[in-house]
Amino acid sequence: MAVYTIVSDEDLHGFLAEYDIGELLSCKGIAEGVENSNYLLHTSSGHYILTLYEKRVDAKDLPFFLGLMEHLANAGIRCPTPIHGRDGQALRHLAGRPAAIVTFLDGICVNRSQPKHCRALGESLAVMHIHGEDFELRRPNALGVADWPLLFRETAPLADTVMPGLKNLIDDELGYLAEFWPQDLKQGVIHADLFPDNVFFFHDTVSGFIDFYFACNDALAYDLAICINAWCFERQGEFNATKARALTQTYQNVRHLSQNDLDALPILCRGAAMRFLLTRLYDWLNKVNGALVRPKDPKEYVERLRFHQKAGSAASYGLT
Amino acid sequence: MAVYTIVSDEDLHGFLAEYDIGELLSCKGIAEGVENSNYLLHTSSGHYILTLYEKRVDAKDLPFFLGLMEHLANAGIRCPTPIHGRDGQALRHLAGRPAAIVTFLDGICVNRSQPKHCRALGESLAVMHIHGEDFELRRPNALGVADWPLLFRETAPLADTVMPGLKNLIDDELGYLAEFWPQDLKQGVIHADLFPDNVFFFHDTVSGFIDFYFACNDALAYDLAICINAWCFERQGEFNATKARALTQTYQNVRHLSQNDLDALPILCRGAAMRFLLTRLYDWLNKVNGALVRPKDPKEYVERLRFHQKAGSAASYGLT
Repeated sequence: MAVYTIVSDEDLHGFLAEYDIGELLSCKGIAEGVENSNYLLHTSSGHYILTLYEKRVDAKDLPFFLGLMEHLANAGIRCPTPIHGRDGQALRHLAGRPAAIVTFLDGICVNRSQPKHCRALGESLAVMHIHGEDFELRRPNALGVADWPLLFRETAPLADTVMPGLKNLIDDELGYLAEFWPQDLKQGVIHADLFPDNVFFFHDTVSGFIDFYFACNDALAYDLAICINAWCFERQGEFNATKARALTQTYQNVRHLSQNDLDALPILCRGAAMRFLLTRLYDWLNKVNGALVRPKDPKEYVERLRFHQKAGSAASYGLT
Repeated sequence: MAVYTIVSDEDLHGFLAEYDIGELLSCKGIAEGVENSNYLLHTSSGHYILTLYEKRVDAKDLPFFLGLMEHLANAGIRCPTPIHGRDGQALRHLAGRPAAIVTFLDGICVNRSQPKHCRALGESLAVMHIHGEDFELRRPNALGVADWPLLFRETAPLADTVMPGLKNLIDDELGYLAEFWPQDLKQGVIHADLFPDNVFFFHDTVSGFIDFYFACNDALAYDLAICINAWCFERQGEFNATKARALTQTYQNVRHLSQNDLDALPILCRGAAMRFLLTRLYDWLNKVNGALVRPKDPKEYVERLRFHQKAGSAASYGLT
């Protein structure tokens, strides 16, 4: 939630001269995304988002992210669509940063999801997975199962200061995940960060997905497992089985999950809980004093992990 | 540059039900203003700004600020216009804060002003002063000449840590200002904070003024003195006489400055420099570690103050 790079009006006018999107009428920094600087542009042709990619995004991944958004948008998935400049390029530089302009997407994020939102999400997620299949670029998951032990190495010495016993709990779980992580699941392009902030609704339908900056190739059912973690637990930590059923069954109605996918769902959910536990733990232990972005409590994901450890099968998530 | 109060989608929908501005399509926190939380709303009827007033704004002043914007907008001055709810009220509460919706204004702030911008500003400032005359509410300047010694009391003990000799310099100047501050100038409604961030341009004309949350009744020429300080010094501290002449002469062409106003201009400029020196000094000494809003260097205003101390007459600012 920030604007890290300030763009002068002169630089902005020069940058926009490379595009054919009309005359600039207004430019406002928006408080969206924790990784990049975002501006809402109003021009004589409409509304756009200008993103300046900050240090946490690897510039070499940008063609994948922008290409994916364009690929999905062309397939009819509602997501920001990169705008090409007069030279055909969608990616250029502004104020010393890689920068791109994408279309502005209407829609509202829900703070308190209801089963109807999970139903709409399940369907849209499955449709996105289907249309991602023929996207030709590849990007390995940089926060996948093989990366978790490495990620934990930096926070392990202080883990018990966050919660007594956390270090052993994570060590044991990482051992289990490394041993039993499924290798034979249907692969595809996943969003990998489809939290409520990244899903827009209009009335009760999904009006778009945003923030594709963790998208990568991985097991498609792992994306569903991330959504189960992100959408189906209540604020006090309780698992909401109604929401999970709404999410998974509408997904399954649109895109068939194989028996392998179904059998793997509990461990995929454990892995997804681990991935967010580890990054939250890192942000929690490396927080900046006084910063406006308050790190989220990693302990929430310990509770979710424990739930998944006890889940016997896909039936725990509403699938049979 | 921040969003301090997060509004849930449910609260927002309930709040908007009080208005007749169509259906909500999008709501984005914007990085504008350091005092309040601002959201850009897109509804089926257009674009609006939703402001939640944070603690630094005194709720009892809000009818003055909102009334003034409405008064000026009705007179044809381009500024945000408060939207009234179905009950006729423009001011209500949201997420525990006083809140109002105003119209969205297009336009771009200039980072590096040129004489043409100062010319346009001088004219628009004079027109605003003329149309403010028949606004019936009153608000004394809470940061006026009588308040400066009080404001300095909190920072005086540490002033010399910012710049050796600063405490004496301010003490002496406050003595001078208290003794010679003019009492017989034409009074009216002033904006009191017309820095480049608060003036929108489209091409080379002023497309609007924003952020009226320091507006008050005071000497009209003092507003011009604030603009001289805010617009006519270069980054290295040099006074740009061409910009000052552009600003003051176009102002004078639209609204006549009396001989009293002209004679007072150097001391008004000294006072304006003192006002921003004191608040910047306060923010500098009370900065929050790691906060995203970086306090501005108060020493810039020491240089400006010294320039004004040597200015002999209004001729120094391009007026005769």
